Amino acid sequence: MASSSERAPEIRRDRVFNRHIILSPARARRPSDFKSKSPANPNTPSPTTQCPFCIGHEHECAPEILRFPPNTPNWKIRVIENLYPALHRDQEHNLFPNPNPNSPLSLVGFGFHDVIIETPTHSLHLPDLSPIGVADVLLVYKERIDQLRLHQSIKYVQVFKNHGASAGASMSHSHSQMIALPIVPPTVSSRLESMKAWFKETGKCGLCDIGSEEVLIDESAHFISVVPFAASFPFEIWIVPKEHCCHFHELNDEKVVDLGGLLKFMLLKLSKQLNDPPYNFMIHTSPLDIGASDLPFSHWFLQIVPQLSGIGGFEMGSGCYINPVFPEDAANVLRQVIVVDGY
Amino acid sequence: MASSSERAPEIRRDRVFNRHIILSPARARRPSDFKSKSPANPNTPSPTTQCPFCIGHEHECAPEILRFPPNTPNWKIRVIENLYPALHRDQEHNLFPNPNPNSPLSLVGFGFHDVIIETPTHSLHLPDLSPIGVADVLLVYKERIDQLRLHQSIKYVQVFKNHGASAGASMSHSHSQMIALPIVPPTVSSRLESMKAWFKETGKCGLCDIGSEEVLIDESAHFISVVPFAASFPFEIWIVPKEHCCHFHELNDEKVVDLGGLLKFMLLKLSKQLNDPPYNFMIHTSPLDIGASDLPFSHWFLQIVPQLSGIGGFEMGSGCYINPVFPEDAANVLRQVIVVDGY
Repeated sequence: MASSSERAPEIRRDRVFNRHIILSPARARRPSDFKSKSPANPNTPSPTTQCPFCIGHEHECAPEILRFPPNTPNWKIRVIENLYPALHRDQEHNLFPNPNPNSPLSLVGFGFHDVIIETPTHSLHLPDLSPIGVADVLLVYKERIDQLRLHQSIKYVQVFKNHGASAGASMSHSHSQMIALPIVPPTVSSRLESMKAWFKETGKCGLCDIGSEEVLIDESAHFISVVPFAASFPFEIWIVPKEHCCHFHELNDEKVVDLGGLLKFMLLKLSKQLNDPPYNFMIHTSPLDIGASDLPFSHWFLQIVPQLSGIGGFEMGSGCYINPVFPEDAANVLRQVIVVDGY
Repeated sequence: MASSSERAPEIRRDRVFNRHIILSPARARRPSDFKSKSPANPNTPSPTTQCPFCIGHEHECAPEILRFPPNTPNWKIRVIENLYPALHRDQEHNLFPNPNPNSPLSLVGFGFHDVIIETPTHSLHLPDLSPIGVADVLLVYKERIDQLRLHQSIKYVQVFKNHGASAGASMSHSHSQMIALPIVPPTVSSRLESMKAWFKETGKCGLCDIGSEEVLIDESAHFISVVPFAASFPFEIWIVPKEHCCHFHELNDEKVVDLGGLLKFMLLKLSKQLNDPPYNFMIHTSPLDIGASDLPFSHWFLQIVPQLSGIGGFEMGSGCYINPVFPEDAANVLRQVIVVDGY
């Protein structure tokens, strides 16, 4: 197989998001030479006495929603309100009037913005936890989504993690977030439309057969990890359930443990190969109030994006990303990264 | 009017891109306190002897496509090939085989990637030019698009400018770029669909009546500048032609001069108010091979986005941006910025 730097550029269309991307090796170093210039983890973590997310500092945080295990001061995971929420949870009952009542383009900013503190220990990051420890974080996502689903006006929950300042994290203590929205957000609507069109055209779900040999990184009993055929970003990874399923929160305990191991393993591989890059991960699920029988075309997955370069005017204007690393080459590099797992 | 920091959050939908955005003042400083932490222009520009974009260094650049004025060594503007093009211009005639000939999701990476050097002088930036000087740059865009339109396989031209390293600029010498694509890119397709739906619903173009008093910054004879009602980014500016028109390249000379003045003025205001922030601008036009009579709903405009904060997992996952400054407040601040114009 020719390496990225010998290839001609190619335009690919992603069947899930219906986005075109440009694979352009012209500026690329060899795929194996990509490294983050700004590693996310400084060697010296901030002193825990200044971090409200550390165990013993619970009183410095916004109110707690749940903890795991419950009813113990020795918690492993806490879900708390975001101290600076993007949306207000107290507006469900219209305590505030709509500031633009006559505009069909305006809604009161109701929603939930929660923080998941993934560990009581400041110096640990998510992939430092055991596979079971990572699975517990995923279980807590599921438990909190199950609570949020009870609010009829919540249509979608976006689970995401920002790791490193340049990926948007304002706290270095390992955490993720979820925002529960009273709307189905734009990328979700267009993803569902795109996957529906693919289903109509081919009779198949666009994610059920995504794992061709060339782009496969690894697989576990219930999941595969791939670099998608039309990846927008270098070394982007998707973790996809093997069995067709539209909602993340339908995961059972066995699958959660399996996913915890694979997610940990992929994060360790990225960290080792790319010099601990800042990264984001996002869970792409389906709207809460649509049942599986109405979503034969929708398949949830988890997307991991290492932040190796910024976005410029071309990407902002066209929605078309330029990726200097061919997905097959990125998958090949990631397949070969050996991570020592103490668990 | 209440300032941003006193308001409750609001969700707005943009009628042009059909995107929801969240206006959330919770984390916000006062709108007038926003400043770039990393100004784009260092006080000491690099020595011109090392810059291939400077006059006298033409031989260090990729081939020239056109210069203005033509046929003179004392050029003001040059269009050259990008030395590291995202797409290859020599693939129009299928010199390279499609690497995935059996995939409906793959195309040969044919296209044009040009650089517009906006001035021969290293120390000048676009808004330092006279209004006529800025207009000449816009005229050169138009002239180059008119050449690219002759290629039947080119469907869309994305004109964009990255100013400052964190906005994606790899050269500090003032320049912009255009990429001519053999496809209509994703954001353009969805913008056209959204504007068509708005037109069907209301019988009106979504941009012809965008300039309400609250969001207006300024106007010239033929253009208005606004902070859009559902701005994705703080202090985002749109410059919109007053007369309905779907293609940028249909601009006549009088309007180009008028636009040059307003664009210069808006860039100076952003620079003064926000401490010379990195920024991007993008021209949002229509596909080249669709005529005006088939595009009653499409209206071209120029979008300017100062880069004040990065993008995190929420925005990447949901497509929903969180803007801490209400557009009305941003417009109010920008209206009041006084810039001294020596021309």
